[in-house]
Amino acid sequence: MNTIHPVILCGGSGTRLWPVSRKVKPKPFLPLIGDETLFEQAASRVAGDSRFAPPVVVAGPQHIDLIEEQMTGEHRLIVEPSAQNTAPAIALAAAMLPADDIMLVCPSDHHIADAQAFRDAAIAAAALAQDNWLVSFGIAPTAPETGYGYLHRGEALPGGFKIARFVEKPDLERAEAYLASGEYSWNGGIFAFRAGYLLEELAQHRPEMAELVAQAVAEGREDGTRFYPAADPFAAIDGDSIDYAVMENTQRAAMVPADMGWSDIGNWAALQDALSDEGDEAGNVTRGDIDLDGCSGVLATTDGPRVSVVGLDDVCIVIANGEVLVTTRAGAQRVGKLPGAVNQ
Amino acid sequence: MNTIHPVILCGGSGTRLWPVSRKVKPKPFLPLIGDETLFEQAASRVAGDSRFAPPVVVAGPQHIDLIEEQMTGEHRLIVEPSAQNTAPAIALAAAMLPADDIMLVCPSDHHIADAQAFRDAAIAAAALAQDNWLVSFGIAPTAPETGYGYLHRGEALPGGFKIARFVEKPDLERAEAYLASGEYSWNGGIFAFRAGYLLEELAQHRPEMAELVAQAVAEGREDGTRFYPAADPFAAIDGDSIDYAVMENTQRAAMVPADMGWSDIGNWAALQDALSDEGDEAGNVTRGDIDLDGCSGVLATTDGPRVSVVGLDDVCIVIANGEVLVTTRAGAQRVGKLPGAVNQ
Repeated sequence: MNTIHPVILCGGSGTRLWPVSRKVKPKPFLPLIGDETLFEQAASRVAGDSRFAPPVVVAGPQHIDLIEEQMTGEHRLIVEPSAQNTAPAIALAAAMLPADDIMLVCPSDHHIADAQAFRDAAIAAAALAQDNWLVSFGIAPTAPETGYGYLHRGEALPGGFKIARFVEKPDLERAEAYLASGEYSWNGGIFAFRAGYLLEELAQHRPEMAELVAQAVAEGREDGTRFYPAADPFAAIDGDSIDYAVMENTQRAAMVPADMGWSDIGNWAALQDALSDEGDEAGNVTRGDIDLDGCSGVLATTDGPRVSVVGLDDVCIVIANGEVLVTTRAGAQRVGKLPGAVNQ
Repeated sequence: MNTIHPVILCGGSGTRLWPVSRKVKPKPFLPLIGDETLFEQAASRVAGDSRFAPPVVVAGPQHIDLIEEQMTGEHRLIVEPSAQNTAPAIALAAAMLPADDIMLVCPSDHHIADAQAFRDAAIAAAALAQDNWLVSFGIAPTAPETGYGYLHRGEALPGGFKIARFVEKPDLERAEAYLASGEYSWNGGIFAFRAGYLLEELAQHRPEMAELVAQAVAEGREDGTRFYPAADPFAAIDGDSIDYAVMENTQRAAMVPADMGWSDIGNWAALQDALSDEGDEAGNVTRGDIDLDGCSGVLATTDGPRVSVVGLDDVCIVIANGEVLVTTRAGAQRVGKLPGAVNQ
């Protein structure tokens, strides 16, 4: 098999994890689960395994310092001149790689508990990608989530399946039916592509985007391990997600099933779930100087001040960076719209 | 009628209102409702009314500075050498006053919305006190509270009633029956006594306490407007409340009904109730930099950091003095037992 290049995307802003996640240091660069940051985990997940090349990181200029600080091993860094969603970011990396090599696109704002399962799925996905399948990781669903896109499994392929259909965020009833059917997976935003083939498909479905990306790369400049695409053509792109731009249009969409303890840690309630192993017998998860009295299902975390909590159930309490957030688990979805999160 | 001397007791520690109320500046000295502190309100309630003499304040040495800061008008200050509950504190004041004058004992950790109703009740109580009744204010109950003592109204007296019976904190069922009967009042800890008669009754029911108080006064020293009772005899007192020491033993217990918007502001939920006029249409009361989203019945107050609250009902959130407290209304009773409140 040709070389597999992990491509780590650093675009996630994580505003629903405010006030811990902030513009100056967003979600990927925070140690939300364990001692490593999510970005560090995305890198170490494929480090020390000769099947994977050193990673290519795609990120905005505002995060270069965080990346250089957190990634000490060999890597290349593509500095996005502007934020244009995932399709242009992935296309930049594709254009920088040998056409026959495999790119393994990994968001850096997700958590994956089982790195071995991830690598196994990556190898299966890479094999399909080498045969010019555009491969999405199909995350084994564990709940009727209404906030994710779903992949409907089609006919079998070696190590995976064709994708019969993409489903946007369903309502609860349909989500429950999908979960019960066993035929649906979550679309986790993890992909394997042969670089050259991805660019071919992009040129077919989004010719203008493909051309502007090619121009941004042609007119870009190298600076050591960093590559700066030209800003003007890149800014002219009408940004879009890789799903909309390519995956939902191609005839060659495939998926590999992946049951690997994935979580997008989409909000404080999701983080609480991902940390449930650390909880006490009443399901409370605490970090820092926390006193609980008669609580259950509480996530409480503080970066300094003591927090005293009495009688609460299913609430997330976050003290960070001089801000105080108290939200129900159900309300956690709305945190990104709070004035404090919006007006950073 | 003889002169009425307001006697303001400053013993309340208010640990259930932690972290705003703290040992160094407890509940009476905080502006919990309105711009004045509870102590200032206790003084201003009887100020500028010629029927009331300048107040006598009884307080511990640790609060002298707060008192001098908050009470600029004429007053006397009796400095308790140690905290011995209300009976010795009241007896100290009684011993310092002319035997035939009336003392109007007012805790400084309660709120009274209707000062005029308070003064009217005080005049009625003073008239009974002059006839050697030991008079308690019977607060018109507004809910089946289980945290208060109750007074059962007996035969009528001019402007009041004999107290037929004292009832300690009842269970809910009995509290509801008391409320329904219309015959019971809350014991609010506000009293009117003829000073000499109170001392006579104390000598009868607690002779040792009466003697030690007399000795502490005889051996005390005057310092301008302050009086320092002798520490040793006062420390030897077996402290007790005025209810246990005298009121529940005398044959001359009386009450005057008082419907005056009284609240002991016993915890954060009680403060929320007392501030309900300031609430929004969903019953939320906020102070300081607070953002609410989809909340009802929330009290949120901060002395600095912004607080963002999503989806919560009937919860009190208090940020003060570097501490964060989040409690259900039901849990507010337990705040005084939290490590933060206990280990000040």
